[in-house]
Amino acid sequence: MTMKKKYTVGILGATGLVGREMIKTLLERKFPVAKWVPLASARSAGTVVSVGKQHLPVQIAEPEAFKGIDFLFSSAGGNVSKALVPAAVEQGCIVIDNTSAFRMQDWVPLVVPEVNAEALRNHKGLIANPNCSTAQLVVVLKPLHDAFGIKRIVCSTYQAVSGAGNKAIEELYTQSEQVLSGQPALPQVLPYPIAFNVIPFIGDFEPNGYTNEEMKMTHEVAKIMGEAIPTTATCVRVPVANGHSESVNIEFSRPVSPQEARLVLQEAPLITIRDDRQLRHFPYPLDVSGTDSVYVGRIREDVSHPHGLNLWIVADNLRKGAALNAVQIAEKMVEMGLV
Amino acid sequence: MTMKKKYTVGILGATGLVGREMIKTLLERKFPVAKWVPLASARSAGTVVSVGKQHLPVQIAEPEAFKGIDFLFSSAGGNVSKALVPAAVEQGCIVIDNTSAFRMQDWVPLVVPEVNAEALRNHKGLIANPNCSTAQLVVVLKPLHDAFGIKRIVCSTYQAVSGAGNKAIEELYTQSEQVLSGQPALPQVLPYPIAFNVIPFIGDFEPNGYTNEEMKMTHEVAKIMGEAIPTTATCVRVPVANGHSESVNIEFSRPVSPQEARLVLQEAPLITIRDDRQLRHFPYPLDVSGTDSVYVGRIREDVSHPHGLNLWIVADNLRKGAALNAVQIAEKMVEMGLV
Repeated sequence: MTMKKKYTVGILGATGLVGREMIKTLLERKFPVAKWVPLASARSAGTVVSVGKQHLPVQIAEPEAFKGIDFLFSSAGGNVSKALVPAAVEQGCIVIDNTSAFRMQDWVPLVVPEVNAEALRNHKGLIANPNCSTAQLVVVLKPLHDAFGIKRIVCSTYQAVSGAGNKAIEELYTQSEQVLSGQPALPQVLPYPIAFNVIPFIGDFEPNGYTNEEMKMTHEVAKIMGEAIPTTATCVRVPVANGHSESVNIEFSRPVSPQEARLVLQEAPLITIRDDRQLRHFPYPLDVSGTDSVYVGRIREDVSHPHGLNLWIVADNLRKGAALNAVQIAEKMVEMGLV
Repeated sequence: MTMKKKYTVGILGATGLVGREMIKTLLERKFPVAKWVPLASARSAGTVVSVGKQHLPVQIAEPEAFKGIDFLFSSAGGNVSKALVPAAVEQGCIVIDNTSAFRMQDWVPLVVPEVNAEALRNHKGLIANPNCSTAQLVVVLKPLHDAFGIKRIVCSTYQAVSGAGNKAIEELYTQSEQVLSGQPALPQVLPYPIAFNVIPFIGDFEPNGYTNEEMKMTHEVAKIMGEAIPTTATCVRVPVANGHSESVNIEFSRPVSPQEARLVLQEAPLITIRDDRQLRHFPYPLDVSGTDSVYVGRIREDVSHPHGLNLWIVADNLRKGAALNAVQIAEKMVEMGLV
């Protein structure tokens, strides 16, 4: 009751966009941190990161550095996670990994606390944070599935460049300036010019013609929902700095009216409905960036299917899609007495 | 054989983005024009428009001005068409109307020449040009439907601002400059800031929660295809100057492999397949702008449905989505001996 336990918190990838958002989110939500340990590759070691009023030197991420860390938030990319996370788990850290490295391994819970917090009970020291596009989607799918039964999902995304990191945001702005001043837009981080363009793929291609970003949605939705709900996704990069949007078509096991769906969604955790046609008040990525909610609008019948609904879902991909969800996992583990 | 007939061609809305594209397209395709009659509202009258090397004064669009015009290409907005097109038809013009004013009227053929040129035979002096998003879609649907039978379509669009006219393009660039220099982006033409944002609706709302832009796709696909193929659309504006993209999920009456679809599409008129995963060569609006083809890529199985396919379709909305299709209608009428 009194003396609340405090934790030593490591941030692996502390200089990255998600790492900094992790620190910000932990501070905002007053996570009980006794000590901060910012970690990054040798290249960034020595850099100073701000944690509230403290300025802390970044340490090299190597196995010895994990000693004494209670929670390690990892967001330095899949290869770094593959190389270092097992050592951190061995040292006794609880690792919350934001990369795709371990998400689909059977022994690793993949958790969105609003959906499947119970999966945390079986953790073996490593919990995976889902891909950004999946996290915001399942927050909306879960209450609808519980109420009406979902049979199939067709999703097209409008993903912000922040999903590709700091340098992709810079690239969007630099290229925009180049185009506005009549120069060619030169891609360096993203695979094609993004300014005043859309790029109809994200990530690498799998043999079936989907990208890994798209198949992540199919696989992760199934794992988090605990059921193989057929899901097909088309992931598209748009010239937006931050905030992922999704156009989602859902087939239910029976007819569901927009009003029924609205009643369920407005009671569901983390969801904000923005669906005012008179005021044209809908979820826009520009407004949603910097906030925690998952916003839903354009809720309407599917004129092509008697059991269908269309929805427009937007969330801050660095928050619910990454840092917020990771911090919520840690909070939940504390609350459930799992640490 | 010899003395090919030449026509007096009126352009209603000659100072607009589509009007100018009409003139450009007629010239490029060497449509047999005897005389040009640029027409616009009183506000634009007296303005000079360039037609090749000629500089022609714009005349006020009023019933008397239509006398002697063989083909009138109309793209000055639905209200102007409603007010003036009947008078033009009465004067004996063949009107090819690019607005939605008459598209769904039973006596008006709605034509995409690659799909339903035969509908021109019954024309009563007025032919409607479909909405931009519909035109590029049906060019792809038609050969697939003929080969495999389409049962249902779920479409999410990524529409360029040029669909909202000249001033919307200026607005995109002005707002982008405003954001890049740290100022607020002020919307005037579009209903919300578009720079570095997406706007999840286009047009006005209907009672069922769809926008008229979305319901146009449902209704126009059915009319052009000659069959009520269930279609649901979500129309989204993205910060792209020109070129509409569509993420399209198609359910067929039987399983169709990507390879079968590819074989059909590569034989179909006006379609260019761009689907090279190694070279990352796909349809991008930035590349497609200024060209005539309808580009198809990301052709792949639907992992959520045994009879489904996903496609990514991009075309220049001012060309196939407007001016090119209108000019093709006129060409086809000449070819079919209907004028």
